[in-house]
Amino acid sequence: MISIDRADLSFQLHDVIGTERLRFMPRYADYDRETIDGVLDTAERIAIEHFLPHAALLDRNEPKFVDGEVEMDPAVGAALAVYREAGFFGAGFDHEWGGAQMPESVRVATAFMFSAANVSTSGYPFLTIGAANLIATFGTDEQKQRFLRPMIEGRFFGTMCLSEPQAGSSLSDITTRAEPAEDGTYRLFGRKMWISGGDQEISENIVHLVLAKIPGGPAGVKGISLFIVPKHEVLEGGGIGERNGVTLAGLNHKMGYRGTTNTLLHLGEDSPCVGYLLGEPHKGLSYMFQMMNEARIGVGLGATALGAAGYQASLAYARERPQGRQPDGKDPSSAQVPIIEHADIRRLLLAQKAAVEGSLALGLYCADLVDTLRVETDETARRENELLLDLLTPVAKSWPSEFCLEANKHAIQILGGYGYTRDFPLERIYRDNRLNPIHEGTHGIQGLDLLGRKVGQANGAGVKALAGRIMADVSQAHGFEALSLHAEALANHLAETVATTRKLAVAASENPRLGLANATIYLDMFGHVVIAWMWLRQALVASRKLEAGAADTAFLNGKLAACRYFFAYELPRTKAQRELLNSLDDTTLSMRPDWF
Amino acid sequence: MISIDRADLSFQLHDVIGTERLRFMPRYADYDRETIDGVLDTAERIAIEHFLPHAALLDRNEPKFVDGEVEMDPAVGAALAVYREAGFFGAGFDHEWGGAQMPESVRVATAFMFSAANVSTSGYPFLTIGAANLIATFGTDEQKQRFLRPMIEGRFFGTMCLSEPQAGSSLSDITTRAEPAEDGTYRLFGRKMWISGGDQEISENIVHLVLAKIPGGPAGVKGISLFIVPKHEVLEGGGIGERNGVTLAGLNHKMGYRGTTNTLLHLGEDSPCVGYLLGEPHKGLSYMFQMMNEARIGVGLGATALGAAGYQASLAYARERPQGRQPDGKDPSSAQVPIIEHADIRRLLLAQKAAVEGSLALGLYCADLVDTLRVETDETARRENELLLDLLTPVAKSWPSEFCLEANKHAIQILGGYGYTRDFPLERIYRDNRLNPIHEGTHGIQGLDLLGRKVGQANGAGVKALAGRIMADVSQAHGFEALSLHAEALANHLAETVATTRKLAVAASENPRLGLANATIYLDMFGHVVIAWMWLRQALVASRKLEAGAADTAFLNGKLAACRYFFAYELPRTKAQRELLNSLDDTTLSMRPDWF
Repeated sequence: MISIDRADLSFQLHDVIGTERLRFMPRYADYDRETIDGVLDTAERIAIEHFLPHAALLDRNEPKFVDGEVEMDPAVGAALAVYREAGFFGAGFDHEWGGAQMPESVRVATAFMFSAANVSTSGYPFLTIGAANLIATFGTDEQKQRFLRPMIEGRFFGTMCLSEPQAGSSLSDITTRAEPAEDGTYRLFGRKMWISGGDQEISENIVHLVLAKIPGGPAGVKGISLFIVPKHEVLEGGGIGERNGVTLAGLNHKMGYRGTTNTLLHLGEDSPCVGYLLGEPHKGLSYMFQMMNEARIGVGLGATALGAAGYQASLAYARERPQGRQPDGKDPSSAQVPIIEHADIRRLLLAQKAAVEGSLALGLYCADLVDTLRVETDETARRENELLLDLLTPVAKSWPSEFCLEANKHAIQILGGYGYTRDFPLERIYRDNRLNPIHEGTHGIQGLDLLGRKVGQANGAGVKALAGRIMADVSQAHGFEALSLHAEALANHLAETVATTRKLAVAASENPRLGLANATIYLDMFGHVVIAWMWLRQALVASRKLEAGAADTAFLNGKLAACRYFFAYELPRTKAQRELLNSLDDTTLSMRPDWF
Repeated sequence: MISIDRADLSFQLHDVIGTERLRFMPRYADYDRETIDGVLDTAERIAIEHFLPHAALLDRNEPKFVDGEVEMDPAVGAALAVYREAGFFGAGFDHEWGGAQMPESVRVATAFMFSAANVSTSGYPFLTIGAANLIATFGTDEQKQRFLRPMIEGRFFGTMCLSEPQAGSSLSDITTRAEPAEDGTYRLFGRKMWISGGDQEISENIVHLVLAKIPGGPAGVKGISLFIVPKHEVLEGGGIGERNGVTLAGLNHKMGYRGTTNTLLHLGEDSPCVGYLLGEPHKGLSYMFQMMNEARIGVGLGATALGAAGYQASLAYARERPQGRQPDGKDPSSAQVPIIEHADIRRLLLAQKAAVEGSLALGLYCADLVDTLRVETDETARRENELLLDLLTPVAKSWPSEFCLEANKHAIQILGGYGYTRDFPLERIYRDNRLNPIHEGTHGIQGLDLLGRKVGQANGAGVKALAGRIMADVSQAHGFEALSLHAEALANHLAETVATTRKLAVAASENPRLGLANATIYLDMFGHVVIAWMWLRQALVASRKLEAGAADTAFLNGKLAACRYFFAYELPRTKAQRELLNSLDDTTLSMRPDWF
């Protein structure tokens, strides 16, 4: 019952983002509309035919830890072989290293489909691509030859090893150390926790990117360096050598996302663990944050994909399941109506549609910023896009994680008791999605990142850039009668949000604890304003297409209705949040631990 | 890590509800404070020593369907034997039938502890008690002797069989039929779906209470009758006779609540299924609603108990886990602080505390109304209490189901990655709790019940009674400076809620589809106002005790802080909901199925 809404993907990519315009840039010259649609067709086919069929099975039959190794369902490797053959590992990378230079917005659209079909199996290549990006950016040519090329080929997989058992959100407290050896390599000692894909039996090799401290370096995050730690040595000619001393100590048994192994790794405990410094010493955290930012947008998109899978499944059910009658037609001898006829079921569907398609719009908007940054030559424009991407990243991670999880809750509700059973995919998707507010920086961490760091960057230039872009769309929207109330509402909410931001910035500079106490509320409030903008953008395009006599009126009217839903049911709640924020409420600060 | 907050139970029962006052009524003369506390001690001990230890195991090793029978972990039967020996099956029933005439508020407090420890094992006796209540109320003396007495003794268990595969929320569409036999009994034919405890291997017999239609009766719900259908015939002297034709066709495999079997039953398919009419023909639904109302309050309490279990577990973790530093003390060489020191973690704890203790207050308030109804002799007072209980029932079911599930989400978040693993109880509790917005009438059904039926009952007398009680507490609260702003806020929210209620009542009478379109939003809004009242009541008592120099100041200050949290973070959101409701928004109605 899981399906892909290609009409929406097409609308978002071609009509809202306008990805095709990138083909005028030399890097993306290959990607005309026909090519893009062909890529999407291939991805959809592989997702539905190879990823989807084993999703439920993999959840039930999760990878096992046997004699220090992972045993897993062979369907994962088989599906990833098809993915590899189709060239998706290298999709976004440079031609020089075997990549296809696919625009990020298109690549992300394919990732969305793979995740919707099977988020666990998708985890392995996505982690690989993230790790490969880091080597592509900061590696030497020799490192690229040895590690990047086989990752792009899909022969080696990758991971990122940040957390430790005693240090999850607090990276300044990691204790893994890297001691210099005489040959210029390092020997690593420590334990890494929550490492997704940390071991598996699919790829020829695993390239771990590990945060560790070189003894004698600065304390805290300023003393963190980044290392390439392969599971097996890579020989001169590219062959697989000796086993390196990074060993699997155990698998974490999770609520969901069960098909992606999540591991505890020991480094240098049983045998020497060789690592190769990536880039310069002590710059590991800033390097890692490049990947982390991509990973955060990726988490948001994964949450969105799960939201979409649940939405499509519950929509199909709601159209078919007869139950009950309208409040004004209770005659028991009349036929029952399909439940999509009930107002409350439509509300649950609209809430999902608004969350999923709003999130997808934001994820693609961020991907488009990445594309723009890759080709933009004007320094001022680059800087603005960069600040905007920095500002939107915590929102793109957190908002879908929160509200597409909520969407999955609604999807279960539509199926009632059936939704609560393991005979339907909804409960699995909901369990999978519960991870997203946790990994790659918890929801609370995103709030601190947004309010404590991002909104103040470059004297608030990111917020200014955002406000400028929103107001440009607001002024366009005033050209359509049906949108002018939305435009006015968004302008008001934006103005109030900017005022609240200023107030909190002043408060945080005087008293950081008080100013940041409600950073998560700020994050949710800010996110709602951003998603309202995403809906106004979609409604604008839909209105233009309707005015131009487009044929798909049902689809376009659905966009207008979902926009209306978001502005009526969702956006107004931010007013109470801003009032709380403006009051600098200190309830949480003044609550004492022993009062609980 | 799951523990019971006895201090809170004691505060709520003795200080807020004042259960002890019931001992002046002959029915409850045995229940002085010492006896009540003794009962609570016994329940806590059994819950922690016998229910809790197998909760995680039972989730992993769920009951199995083998050769038409259920195979289950023997720990369930062992725990329930202890429960039975302690007399908890019969706690609330009349002395005449072997019960202990325990006040409902006390019984509910014990149920809260059993559910917090192990909601699945608790399911069996709670279903039995519900079914037994129906026989106690509507059964003949002969039926009571044959079925009720062994249920009170805990030898027979009970179920309620309402839903069918094609009729979950819509009982008017059930098709199970009961054909009169010559001996005055009936023969039942049909299939019942989602029957909790529908089979097990613990009790000597199972007494199913089954909704079915006698051929020739009125269409729809007016033609539904209620039947006693034992799994085994009960012989004259009470012995167990032949197997009756109610057979287990399969078990549903659920997301959570896995230890309580949930079954598909076939009636009269393989062999004759004998049923005994309970009460009069065609009155089955109104009888069932008596049990359903108790069941709904019970669902709310179960959700609350799961919320409490998660809250206590995450609180214990937050006190012990060191991670990170304050925003104004980032020196990496300083020690990390326990995460309870972080404002956002305290917010997640306060949100849980507010949801859990607010829900518990409401559940106990409803139980106290039940007690009052049992002993009240003044007809006007009785009627008021009855209307109030009717009005509050959908809230007592739905609010905890929604917001204690949310609380469990927060509990997972506090543990981060650990919370997402099966090594900790949080993810299980969250899965268990996801059932509560679905069973015994979905969230949407509760909204229709509240707005479409309850608020209009007796010309709105229930709402008037509620408003009167709230305003009485508001005027008391004005006597405490720290509470007067809360009192004022609650009075305003109440007045606006009453106005919105009137507006919707008029709209619904003119256009039922439009007036009821946002019934669920109304339910959530109304629920928040009721829970705010529950917090004002607790804060009032806490203030009085602090003024009187009570020793447990930390506990009482915690109550004031949680009240403050609810009024600052939660109640204000209802304003936007009322604005939506007052606007008679028709977004969901005008959305067309083909636009999705």
